Amino acid sequence: MAQARASFSVDALKLQVFLWGEREWQVRQRIESVLSKDPIFDKASRSFLTRSELYHRALAMTNRLHELLELHNWSAEEASIAFRLIDEPLPMQLHMAAFEPVIRTQGAPELRQKFGELIAQRGILGCYLQTELGHGTNVASLETTATYIPETREFEIHSPTLTSSKWWIGALGKTATHGVVQARLILPSGKDVGPHLFFVQLRSLEDHKVLPGITIGDIGPKAMGGYNAVDNGYARFDHVRIPHEQMLSGFASVTPDGQYVQPPHAKLSYGGMLYIRSSMVSSGGWTIARGATIAIRYATVRRQGNRGADGLERQVITYPSVYYRLLPVLAHAYVFVVLGHNLTKAFGEMTTRLAAGDTSLLAEMHATTSGLKVLVSTTAAQDLETARRSMGGHGFSDFAGVGRLYADYVPAATYEGDNFVLDQQVVRAALKAFDAVVTKKTRGVHELTPSTAYLRHLVSSKSSPSTPSLKWHDPQSVVSLLEKRAAATVQERAKHLHDPDASVDQRVSRAVTDAFVAAQVGDFVKSLEETVGGKEAVVLRKLYNLHLLTTAESGLVDILSFGLLGPTTQGSDPTRDLRLAIKRHCEELLPESIGLSDGFGFSDWELDSALGVYDGNVYESLWKRAQSEPLNASEVTEGYKKYIKPMLERGQRLAARSKL
Amino acid sequence: MAQARASFSVDALKLQVFLWGEREWQVRQRIESVLSKDPIFDKASRSFLTRSELYHRALAMTNRLHELLELHNWSAEEASIAFRLIDEPLPMQLHMAAFEPVIRTQGAPELRQKFGELIAQRGILGCYLQTELGHGTNVASLETTATYIPETREFEIHSPTLTSSKWWIGALGKTATHGVVQARLILPSGKDVGPHLFFVQLRSLEDHKVLPGITIGDIGPKAMGGYNAVDNGYARFDHVRIPHEQMLSGFASVTPDGQYVQPPHAKLSYGGMLYIRSSMVSSGGWTIARGATIAIRYATVRRQGNRGADGLERQVITYPSVYYRLLPVLAHAYVFVVLGHNLTKAFGEMTTRLAAGDTSLLAEMHATTSGLKVLVSTTAAQDLETARRSMGGHGFSDFAGVGRLYADYVPAATYEGDNFVLDQQVVRAALKAFDAVVTKKTRGVHELTPSTAYLRHLVSSKSSPSTPSLKWHDPQSVVSLLEKRAAATVQERAKHLHDPDASVDQRVSRAVTDAFVAAQVGDFVKSLEETVGGKEAVVLRKLYNLHLLTTAESGLVDILSFGLLGPTTQGSDPTRDLRLAIKRHCEELLPESIGLSDGFGFSDWELDSALGVYDGNVYESLWKRAQSEPLNASEVTEGYKKYIKPMLERGQRLAARSKL
Repeated sequence: MAQARASFSVDALKLQVFLWGEREWQVRQRIESVLSKDPIFDKASRSFLTRSELYHRALAMTNRLHELLELHNWSAEEASIAFRLIDEPLPMQLHMAAFEPVIRTQGAPELRQKFGELIAQRGILGCYLQTELGHGTNVASLETTATYIPETREFEIHSPTLTSSKWWIGALGKTATHGVVQARLILPSGKDVGPHLFFVQLRSLEDHKVLPGITIGDIGPKAMGGYNAVDNGYARFDHVRIPHEQMLSGFASVTPDGQYVQPPHAKLSYGGMLYIRSSMVSSGGWTIARGATIAIRYATVRRQGNRGADGLERQVITYPSVYYRLLPVLAHAYVFVVLGHNLTKAFGEMTTRLAAGDTSLLAEMHATTSGLKVLVSTTAAQDLETARRSMGGHGFSDFAGVGRLYADYVPAATYEGDNFVLDQQVVRAALKAFDAVVTKKTRGVHELTPSTAYLRHLVSSKSSPSTPSLKWHDPQSVVSLLEKRAAATVQERAKHLHDPDASVDQRVSRAVTDAFVAAQVGDFVKSLEETVGGKEAVVLRKLYNLHLLTTAESGLVDILSFGLLGPTTQGSDPTRDLRLAIKRHCEELLPESIGLSDGFGFSDWELDSALGVYDGNVYESLWKRAQSEPLNASEVTEGYKKYIKPMLERGQRLAARSKL
Repeated sequence: MAQARASFSVDALKLQVFLWGEREWQVRQRIESVLSKDPIFDKASRSFLTRSELYHRALAMTNRLHELLELHNWSAEEASIAFRLIDEPLPMQLHMAAFEPVIRTQGAPELRQKFGELIAQRGILGCYLQTELGHGTNVASLETTATYIPETREFEIHSPTLTSSKWWIGALGKTATHGVVQARLILPSGKDVGPHLFFVQLRSLEDHKVLPGITIGDIGPKAMGGYNAVDNGYARFDHVRIPHEQMLSGFASVTPDGQYVQPPHAKLSYGGMLYIRSSMVSSGGWTIARGATIAIRYATVRRQGNRGADGLERQVITYPSVYYRLLPVLAHAYVFVVLGHNLTKAFGEMTTRLAAGDTSLLAEMHATTSGLKVLVSTTAAQDLETARRSMGGHGFSDFAGVGRLYADYVPAATYEGDNFVLDQQVVRAALKAFDAVVTKKTRGVHELTPSTAYLRHLVSSKSSPSTPSLKWHDPQSVVSLLEKRAAATVQERAKHLHDPDASVDQRVSRAVTDAFVAAQVGDFVKSLEETVGGKEAVVLRKLYNLHLLTTAESGLVDILSFGLLGPTTQGSDPTRDLRLAIKRHCEELLPESIGLSDGFGFSDWELDSALGVYDGNVYESLWKRAQSEPLNASEVTEGYKKYIKPMLERGQRLAARSKL
């Protein structure tokens, strides 16, 4: 490991500042050193705890974070960084990610006045009750009702069926005192105007008991031990009354006498969802970064196979089948982290405009974040498994730490919109743009947004369908190829509007999002001298291009189908040049891989992985951790007398008998 | 669900007999009814247990199985079926799958005489110590030594380094009394003749204490909770002496005075490994079958989205994005189960010949099982995740049962030979055959084995490279396409022998194995009238063809690269016909999907899934299971006083202060 560290050319510190930003990087360093030394945040025992114990540990950490917040007088930004330094989902994250923002953006001023500060200071703890047992992504069909009763100026929240039970709600099971409930608003006339949001107290602030008319519980363990510390819960409401002010009426509202007031714009309330989706881009990138760091460090230390001139076996990472899997994962992390920063900026601009009633950026943001949410969550889940399996047998140890990342990450493919449903929204937006720009020509090329820019290849006269002269070492050439692929894919989809094949929407969505990301990456490359400079710019250019090349490789079916590699010479594989380019890029990046991983700046405490330790002493680390396994507490297991001894004695008796 | 059951045309019972075989099906039914009624095999609590508790539960089940064995006088075959009915890995499985067979096939007669019956009756419990902390698949570099000492006629087993510690050994941690240790044999001359096997007692049969000179422990929890009930362990040996007879000297041996006796055939000892790999084909198929049954049942019951003429929302399975994912999974299960049966037969023939010193079938079996192990384990892991994600949010509940299957299955990609290492062996065998048949023509087409039959497309004059007239509804036409793809891929690989790209071996291995499986499936189709007949034959023909079509779809990059779809018409997607054929096949199979799943014959006890219950009452089942979550034992969590209350009070204090 020391040797690997001596041989890379990038400056890991410079990369850390580039990726985190100067300010956040400094704050992180400071807070990390506080948390990692505090025994409450120690991770040594968590592999051995039950769910109940993990839940209590999560509460202890949350409570301690709030103590520290007050003690160190951390700002909201610092608090948010502190929370993000905890590498496992906590019940309270939903308070911050969903409950607080939805009240801030959709609550009427009176409600915000009354509860805003309590919410900000955690004087009440909230959750967001959307999903039901019977309905998830398809919010329009939720069954919970909120019937307005003008006589008493109350809404009556009710769960009419078993399937209308709220389900999966983070922090609901045992923690939250209040919640925002999504329910179909029923007017006094009996008219159902669809799902709206209501602020409901769930538990007593005196003794934490569940309030009358409400049934609440935890929904049980999650697959693969994911989200173990979170009390995802269920709730049923039996004609529960809440006052009129507790409807979140920042947009739509009901007058005291029961008249429905339409929101000024149908999609104004989408902001929160878009915010969560857009934040999933960089968080996905950072999750990949963890898996990549662990796997690359281990593959650098692990030796297997042929012996080299130094008498040692080869480092596993020098095998093509290993580096071909790991370096693209590293590239994804860099791309998604940087992309996430840009998206956050764009989101800020949209929010400012939205506040002024300008919804012009909403559609673009919606199309972009839907596609990116699918791409990033699918890629990150896959990359974590790729990283874990690249570590062979030891990757299956809990102490490797990547299985845990996977289990906690993988629901991202489903929450905030099931990926397969979002694909269809991406396709719908793409077809709409195709129709306006290419078919009807009601919009010009100059009106193309970043998410539809690839369509210019279908209308611009400059970009003829003739043989492109592809230069694999030139990022802009690969960007252009990926844009043409998206354009051709959308065109083909439009041609068969009414008899699409069964998987085409996944392919179109991927092609369109790949093109968007590629164009962004093309821009990153152009600005590298400015944003980072020096040797790092040279290395990152290769890394970004590796991302583009492997994206092109994963899109080869489309690329070949639409003849985008040019005419094929008989008997020669048209994909070979691309694949050799990938190999060459990997070979050139190999000596930099430890530097690029160090560039994420994770401490050993953060990674909590026996295989990803900074000093590379992976075997000592695995051995040490195994010693704390509770089964090792006694030399002879308790089960010996009760089960093993009877088995052995029975077997000895039967064996003796059969020998007679 | 009742409606779905009323509308399929296949006879589920007939399919069960087809898949299990008449005899095994009957035995299974009988044993299942014994086990599922016995409280020791109840599964209701296992989601909530710690590893130690799960380990003890596994011991209790194992001990009970042996009681039942004696009570019901079950045969070895019945015992094996009983063990396979347990849906989680047990410590004792390694005794049966590795320890017992290796002693039977490689132990000298004296050793077998002394311990054979004890092993068969579990009078001693064994494990198989191969993998070390520093080495896995690359057995040649194992570090543990066994030095022969002619003076005392003993071997001295020793772990010279930390990395030579045996690691990952199933049942070693707390259970096994004996083990077969793989160690480098060092002759008195100091000559190292590489890894050999030694029979070593590990724990006292009096009190189960670890014997002197040996250090043993459990290696700790596995990723995602997989193999939780198994005590995978580590062991270090400090100059431990064993008598001369305890070398497994059925093949190679050492004379009492220390001369090495070569085995008659270098690969004779491969039998055991090949056996485990070949058995992974049908076990992979049955694992996929579980995931498929659960996901298809849930997708049939779950309704979401547009309402149909009956006023109900659409069944989720009728959406193309869902059935396109699930029906191919169903097809894989049928294909791998049947393929596994055939492989078992072929394996039996090889074993018979091997016993007579005839090694002619060994190379073919080795090539076949390596490729199939990679294909089946990769496919099954992927299919389980596909099935789990197809169930949306609820798929992430532990009660869905598929996450558990995944966590227990996924190490199959690594154990018994890492898939990426095995790929290279498949490629090596393919290149050797290519060289002999195509380049040097030292072997003729008539000498092609089933695993290399696809090469005939390169030499046979009948099979010209001109446009094939593909008929997607004709299985034999698709088989031929997949064989041509394999041939072209191997040819291209041979052309660039010394500068392969970084992922080519994965692609070649896949293409070759796909072709082998396709040819087998082509044969299944031909014999359907005979093996199953009736409506079932018609449906299975479609299902098998769906397997072939989706295999072709997954190989489209190769197929397009080598121009195997014929010349492309400008502006038309050459893949569309294939993809529409997949869609049509899915649509035709859709009404049969519940029948085909019922055809696996799993009971609710076996599946242990809230979403896969036979009667389709998934929401009631989820609700019921959630009630037993330990967090729900008290209305107000223990953590309230200690953590939640202080947080709320602090927040209320701070909020009040900031309002001043």
